[in-house]
Amino acid sequence: MENVEKRRTIRKYADKPVGDDLLRRLLEVAERTQTMGNMQLYSVVVTRDEEMKRRLAPAHFNQPMVTQAPVVLTVCADFNRTVRWAEQRKAVPGYDNFLSFLNAATDALLFTQTFCNLAEEEGLGICYLGTTLYMPEQLIDLLKLPRLVMPVATLTVGWPDECPGQTDRLPLDAIVHSEIYHDYSATDIDRYYTPKEQLAENRHFVEINHKETLAQIFTDIRYTRKDNEAMSCGLLKALRRQGFLD
Amino acid sequence: MENVEKRRTIRKYADKPVGDDLLRRLLEVAERTQTMGNMQLYSVVVTRDEEMKRRLAPAHFNQPMVTQAPVVLTVCADFNRTVRWAEQRKAVPGYDNFLSFLNAATDALLFTQTFCNLAEEEGLGICYLGTTLYMPEQLIDLLKLPRLVMPVATLTVGWPDECPGQTDRLPLDAIVHSEIYHDYSATDIDRYYTPKEQLAENRHFVEINHKETLAQIFTDIRYTRKDNEAMSCGLLKALRRQGFLD
Repeated sequence: MENVEKRRTIRKYADKPVGDDLLRRLLEVAERTQTMGNMQLYSVVVTRDEEMKRRLAPAHFNQPMVTQAPVVLTVCADFNRTVRWAEQRKAVPGYDNFLSFLNAATDALLFTQTFCNLAEEEGLGICYLGTTLYMPEQLIDLLKLPRLVMPVATLTVGWPDECPGQTDRLPLDAIVHSEIYHDYSATDIDRYYTPKEQLAENRHFVEINHKETLAQIFTDIRYTRKDNEAMSCGLLKALRRQGFLD
Repeated sequence: MENVEKRRTIRKYADKPVGDDLLRRLLEVAERTQTMGNMQLYSVVVTRDEEMKRRLAPAHFNQPMVTQAPVVLTVCADFNRTVRWAEQRKAVPGYDNFLSFLNAATDALLFTQTFCNLAEEEGLGICYLGTTLYMPEQLIDLLKLPRLVMPVATLTVGWPDECPGQTDRLPLDAIVHSEIYHDYSATDIDRYYTPKEQLAENRHFVEINHKETLAQIFTDIRYTRKDNEAMSCGLLKALRRQGFLD
């Protein structure tokens, strides 16, 4: 439990390779993660090549971790392999639909998180790139992902070359509901979010961005309606292209 | 690494409670999981009440774990809390879209898997119920999930009262691709799937179901096109109802 308790995201990596034996061992143990009907509806594309990293970087808003990390993993929801197996075995698959995408994405994300926990236990540093869902078509093209394969997560992996402070988290009561969902009162919101808003770094962030509240940093700068709506269109288009949506 | 390597899904639980202190501690440590912009886009509904378990069971095809386990956790993608915060802080949120659903579902699933890894490390047994995505509207009604909250994972949690054999997994080469996705040849498929097909239990399963191949068990019985398409409609309907899709 201690490894998870003390974890932090690592964005700077030492100039030291991540051995293939270690990487393969971590991926292999991560395969023990539960999976739907034991179908293992995921694939992992391993990027070590410098040129490939440079080509992946723009799809991740050129965050420097992509080119700086020794290893980049793109984890994909994958029904292609299962469908090829079925077709080769006189079976008629029906996995070109939205439920099948979410089933495969679930498998892929659970596998990804076990890998993260294992890698961090071994002392590796990980950065999870949520940008994978922002411009998926670029990744589909670069990694040559066939129909029924969709990128859902990217990890940059390396030996830590920094030890940032831990970020804050909401109190447990803010995320746990007993028996039914108890919606949040104004008092609840104040109680749960005020400590976050009062952190020096967050107050500074509000100030330098000339905003009135921390929440406005999220809604007006980091995750805006305009961007979310545009990227939702791109995401749905990519799902149609990959055969998961009519 | 050993805990993950030796794990198995547990479907039978001892008649021994899971203490609230332990459960809260596991959930609290799981909160260390990376999350988008540190927004923690998830909530957990804890079911301990026997009557609530009985009411949840049909949404999970009456699998006996739901009523037998001392604790059932329904993990939800949750943008409701963040939006309430934003609205209370003069911010105008734009998270009623598909990208935001997938972002929140990702947060929820990564959190779920860290919880699984931690709970199994403590000796608890877990069964992950993929059925959560099958009839989400039943869960939305029963757990009173508001707009922008969507159930994505259910875990039954308890002390193991069985020690089943470990299930097989595909060889690592079947799921790993170097630099780009290398699609599977007929030879690859044979190499990767034959060991699974030759397992005594799988051969038996094919026989008693009067099928020709193991793949047909999946396509014709367990995960059929008809069911997948009907449940895809239900899932998209639920996403619209919860405000994540136009």
